[in-house]
Amino acid sequence: MVIALDAMGGDHAPAMVLEGAAIARGRMPHLRFLLFGDQERLTPLLALHPLLREGVEIRHAAQVIGPSDKPSQALRRSPQSSMRLAIEAVRDGHAAGVLSAGNTGALMALSRFVLKMQPGVDRPAMISYFPTARGESAMLDLGANVECDARHLVQFAILGAGFARSVLGVARPVVGLLNVGAEELKGHDEVRAAGQILREAKFGFDFHGFVEGDDIGAGTVDVVVTDGFTGNAVLKATEGTAKLISQFLNLAFRRSWVSKLGYVLAKPALDSLRAKLDPRQYNGALFLGLNGVVVKSHGGTDGEGFASAISVAADMVRGDFNESIHADLDVFDHRVAAEPQLATKAAS
Amino acid sequence: MVIALDAMGGDHAPAMVLEGAAIARGRMPHLRFLLFGDQERLTPLLALHPLLREGVEIRHAAQVIGPSDKPSQALRRSPQSSMRLAIEAVRDGHAAGVLSAGNTGALMALSRFVLKMQPGVDRPAMISYFPTARGESAMLDLGANVECDARHLVQFAILGAGFARSVLGVARPVVGLLNVGAEELKGHDEVRAAGQILREAKFGFDFHGFVEGDDIGAGTVDVVVTDGFTGNAVLKATEGTAKLISQFLNLAFRRSWVSKLGYVLAKPALDSLRAKLDPRQYNGALFLGLNGVVVKSHGGTDGEGFASAISVAADMVRGDFNESIHADLDVFDHRVAAEPQLATKAAS
Repeated sequence: MVIALDAMGGDHAPAMVLEGAAIARGRMPHLRFLLFGDQERLTPLLALHPLLREGVEIRHAAQVIGPSDKPSQALRRSPQSSMRLAIEAVRDGHAAGVLSAGNTGALMALSRFVLKMQPGVDRPAMISYFPTARGESAMLDLGANVECDARHLVQFAILGAGFARSVLGVARPVVGLLNVGAEELKGHDEVRAAGQILREAKFGFDFHGFVEGDDIGAGTVDVVVTDGFTGNAVLKATEGTAKLISQFLNLAFRRSWVSKLGYVLAKPALDSLRAKLDPRQYNGALFLGLNGVVVKSHGGTDGEGFASAISVAADMVRGDFNESIHADLDVFDHRVAAEPQLATKAAS
Repeated sequence: MVIALDAMGGDHAPAMVLEGAAIARGRMPHLRFLLFGDQERLTPLLALHPLLREGVEIRHAAQVIGPSDKPSQALRRSPQSSMRLAIEAVRDGHAAGVLSAGNTGALMALSRFVLKMQPGVDRPAMISYFPTARGESAMLDLGANVECDARHLVQFAILGAGFARSVLGVARPVVGLLNVGAEELKGHDEVRAAGQILREAKFGFDFHGFVEGDDIGAGTVDVVVTDGFTGNAVLKATEGTAKLISQFLNLAFRRSWVSKLGYVLAKPALDSLRAKLDPRQYNGALFLGLNGVVVKSHGGTDGEGFASAISVAADMVRGDFNESIHADLDVFDHRVAAEPQLATKAAS
């Protein structure tokens, strides 16, 4: 299995990318990489990692897309960028997936332009997964689409279920639609119409119904579906809350010498909790709905986090994602074709 | 100062309401209460609280609005309900504010029907405040309006700034608009148009610009403005995250006898942290924009939590909220009148 890596994307690239690749190869020796970037910088770095001596090829890219470049600039002005060439490697069949820690908007625009949408999917959606009281759950869209109609939300449910099968290993995922209440009448038109379709159609996943914000951490469902505006705000707000509580905890432990001693005694247990909640472990958001596996790593991550994102890409390639959602996309197409009033509602 | 209490609303009403009133009177002896509810049930309960012997009057209400009653039912069928009569006490000048732990939708509908909107405000908004890394911040709308245009968002900013002055005691609040990125071009039309108005108009508060989800916990601004769908999802998701981390922490401390001992030593510090984050302390969401102070307590709260909500009502009455937002509402009206293209955009 070959993964194309944008070696120049991310705050600590390219060193971080090579470190991540080395960690990933240590865990999954069958992985091979195409490294896209500045050959002169990459060659000496590559020599530092014995694990990368085999199965890694550098492909020179003369351009780099910066973190503040606009997607339109990236599309027009950077035909030789490491990001673009890495994506083209997937289109041309040289790699099974692509991973970048670079500019999110540019990665989305270039991926959509180069790879095109999967048939039956209107827009790409961003998905990621996180720890819950019940294991792991995923949420989409995390910001690719700030406005979504019912048709998009139903497609997100289908894509999210496929992700849960491929990456979370859930055979028949349970999907919930985020809303301001559990009752059928709650929410705005788009979410109500999507809820109706999801309740009635026979998809290869179970629809739980509407879920609320607190169901996310509770792990009530395997996949939480929402529009990109809400998903982005919720994801960042929960990250902010976790950070805030961790700051408050640190202050509390420092309050007296007795509490400091308590901290020392509880440290191994607290460290294992910290490891469980380590954001690096959940690094790697996917753009679903494209003709190819595209993974976005957090820009500020380190080698460990980048390696997690590589394993998400590997899971998606292995999991036969496209195959798994094909039947559900067909069900939706038939449903919309059979009931024109639904089509109008879905496209409202 | 007289506050009208819906004595029959909430999971543990009416006992919890009287307990809360007694706690609040212990702290604020100048407070007086009108208790609306079933006289036969309230009279013996009242006798249990020496602190309520003075300054409390029972007003009999023959009906109770149930937690699952629809707002439309509450409007038509419950003219003698404790909630309705308590709201009418504000309209008739017998009380300065009203507090209920009952049905949220019914409280909103009845308040709007009985009290009417303040001139210059189109829709009521729900606001609450919470701990941050920098003190306390407030967020609105928390679910009263699932769809909002730019005009509503600007009005929310004005209302939220007034709340920050009255309840948080911030003389010149800093307001941020929740979005998927900080750049001016990010987000959907409504949020961009509202951002433009907030940047350009001279209000009695400072506009920070767009904020993202993680700015909420960081306390980047005093007031976070968003639509009711996003606000509701974000609020519940952060509550869920806090609960999840607390569960994980409990498990971690129980992992070994050493970590258990560590917990015992750190317990006083952890207890003070728990008290700092105690949701009862932040109980009391306000419906802003009405001709009168209306506070909604969490339905499942206890006497301590209800007392916090009473003090929010008292702060709002004392803070001269309506006075404080009057000038800003005028500025907005002039702005919209002077630039018709803005009015179109705001109403889009």
